[in-house]
Amino acid sequence: MSKDKVQIFDTTLRDGEQVPGCKLDTKQKLVIARQLDQLGVDVIEAGFPVSSPGDFQSVNEIAKLVKNATVCGLTRAVRKDIEVAAEALQGAVRPRIHTGIGTSESHIKYKFNSTQDKILERAYEAVAYAKTFVEDVEFYAEDAGRTDNEFLARICEAAIKAGATVLNIPDTTGYCLPEEYGAKMKYLKENVKGIEKAILSCHCHNDLGLATANSIAGVINGARQIECTINGIGERAGNTSLEEVVMIMRQHPYLNLDTGIKSEMLFETSQMVSSKMGMPVQPNKAIVGSNAFAHSSGIHQDGVIKKRETYEIIDPAEVGVTESSIVLTARSGRAALAWRAKKVGYELTKIQLDEVYEEFLQYADRKKEIVDEDIHQIIDGCKVKLESLA
Amino acid sequence: MSKDKVQIFDTTLRDGEQVPGCKLDTKQKLVIARQLDQLGVDVIEAGFPVSSPGDFQSVNEIAKLVKNATVCGLTRAVRKDIEVAAEALQGAVRPRIHTGIGTSESHIKYKFNSTQDKILERAYEAVAYAKTFVEDVEFYAEDAGRTDNEFLARICEAAIKAGATVLNIPDTTGYCLPEEYGAKMKYLKENVKGIEKAILSCHCHNDLGLATANSIAGVINGARQIECTINGIGERAGNTSLEEVVMIMRQHPYLNLDTGIKSEMLFETSQMVSSKMGMPVQPNKAIVGSNAFAHSSGIHQDGVIKKRETYEIIDPAEVGVTESSIVLTARSGRAALAWRAKKVGYELTKIQLDEVYEEFLQYADRKKEIVDEDIHQIIDGCKVKLESLA
Repeated sequence: MSKDKVQIFDTTLRDGEQVPGCKLDTKQKLVIARQLDQLGVDVIEAGFPVSSPGDFQSVNEIAKLVKNATVCGLTRAVRKDIEVAAEALQGAVRPRIHTGIGTSESHIKYKFNSTQDKILERAYEAVAYAKTFVEDVEFYAEDAGRTDNEFLARICEAAIKAGATVLNIPDTTGYCLPEEYGAKMKYLKENVKGIEKAILSCHCHNDLGLATANSIAGVINGARQIECTINGIGERAGNTSLEEVVMIMRQHPYLNLDTGIKSEMLFETSQMVSSKMGMPVQPNKAIVGSNAFAHSSGIHQDGVIKKRETYEIIDPAEVGVTESSIVLTARSGRAALAWRAKKVGYELTKIQLDEVYEEFLQYADRKKEIVDEDIHQIIDGCKVKLESLA
Repeated sequence: MSKDKVQIFDTTLRDGEQVPGCKLDTKQKLVIARQLDQLGVDVIEAGFPVSSPGDFQSVNEIAKLVKNATVCGLTRAVRKDIEVAAEALQGAVRPRIHTGIGTSESHIKYKFNSTQDKILERAYEAVAYAKTFVEDVEFYAEDAGRTDNEFLARICEAAIKAGATVLNIPDTTGYCLPEEYGAKMKYLKENVKGIEKAILSCHCHNDLGLATANSIAGVINGARQIECTINGIGERAGNTSLEEVVMIMRQHPYLNLDTGIKSEMLFETSQMVSSKMGMPVQPNKAIVGSNAFAHSSGIHQDGVIKKRETYEIIDPAEVGVTESSIVLTARSGRAALAWRAKKVGYELTKIQLDEVYEEFLQYADRKKEIVDEDIHQIIDGCKVKLESLA
């Protein structure tokens, strides 16, 4: 059975780039856009053209550069924003305008000092106006995560009537639990008239550490696009991590969902974005962290040496990491020590191993990590004892 | 209605400390243990005493130091391990031995070259033996995430018969989806005879970015302990983040679950662990990252200035962060600029603001972040124009 395709909408250059410290110049953005296009993302959100002259220029140049992915520009539900975005997107093979408005009670009341009916009207008008420039218009219902489902369905219906091709349901504040976010998608799928004409999209934030789980709950319940960023960068605690949702679908074939991402390019893309933006990736980051495939406890190392799959669900090569590593520390066991000693040239008998292991532990208790040079030193230190055992 | 208590089992000093580069000496471990005790964790897993002399000593000194939390030592289902752990835990007010064995097909076959029946017997014996030393014995079914539920229920029953007080159901490889992990807990809750005598515990790994969501699914389905670490450190992509699960329960009162954690100590604890272990926390880490409460896009800043709750679900003070920040970048809007200009002494009229904003954007397109000094420069640069407008 062929799998359902989930589109990957990358917003590294928009929601990611707006973050403190992440600003890129146009040249850097072009390099990343080219990489994303090769990685196989379906949509590149290139920026928010009205926000600054620099951002306008970047979106414009990315639009001309990218040949495969759709190139998208963000706007508010404001005519000027939409006009500027349309102008910036000229030259794109597949242009998309992303427009929308806050729909939660909190946003309607405090941001807009408005009413549901007026917001609905502005949404309709913005989509219809964007539609006069491009075929592909995505509508976002900002703070949908905290928007009452009934009103959300009404505004989605209006957006579809105005010509929206994609409906973005953002959990803007990162508040939802997976069950809740999934139920929201299900509700929309079942209650919005004309829903078959548009794709539902997940846009989740990670304030409570749930962006990935929420996005997966979204696609399980009918969404077919995920908005995400490389390394999960983005406003506050960031957005959904592209690499995580891609690998979850790949690792759980029974979901019957897949993306067009070339997963073997994930690690290099992560490194590129991190270095260009100066945004470090923590070592324990899923999929792309430097420790993601490192095994250090004795119990785990013993298992991995016997058979990789005992402790590793992803083959590192699948995401472009050369190999999993067995790191020697004071928590390592005999199996890892013997394996590593063999790698650097020592074939130890069981009795010799016991001897060397004791020396190793003393040594390792004083050091964070044992490198090859240390192994030579440790074994040298045991030489007299080892010879007497030989 | 009073909330159900979920116990927080912190394994920063065991699963966290075994990570490449995270090794601590005994003194450092004592400082962290004291902090965890003050933070209000219910259990501190202090180490794996048999693994090295240094770890034995650390567990032993932590056992004597900690007055509130239970202090726990890890073992394999091996008599020697259990004896050494019992010895290390002498002096603890509330000692717990944590013993167990791999239960998945992959572990039984490749790690132990054994059979389900023999593994079940070893599990029973290990718990019974540990019980001869301490009252409080936790049993772990390693790789429970990939263990067939029927066998898992059988081995849990055996552990309870042998006297286990807690049953740890680890998703050792970080493979499960939240629905799946939740369903596993529900199955055990409904099918293990004697389950009312023990607490079910979640121990999730973050290989696919789902540790937090899985742990929450676990407690929604009946578990009453979560094993986690500060900053989510741990083997490979790490463990469940303590700060995330604590704040999820606090932010979702309808779950009717809570912990005893003093959340206002979360940020300082995160910083302490990160600096002592040399493990950086990425800026976009949920709850404790440096950007977790930073707002940079114009749309968000405008909202937060009008009312914090439009874009922020957690009051930063609740987790010990002094204040949310409005960071000025080229993605900022007029509202943020006016707010910040006022902070540094300029009260701008609407027309003046338009003028300064244009200058600001030119300036900001060339810089990652605008600091107070830049504001003065920008406004100085506009002076002639501003005066002519006045």
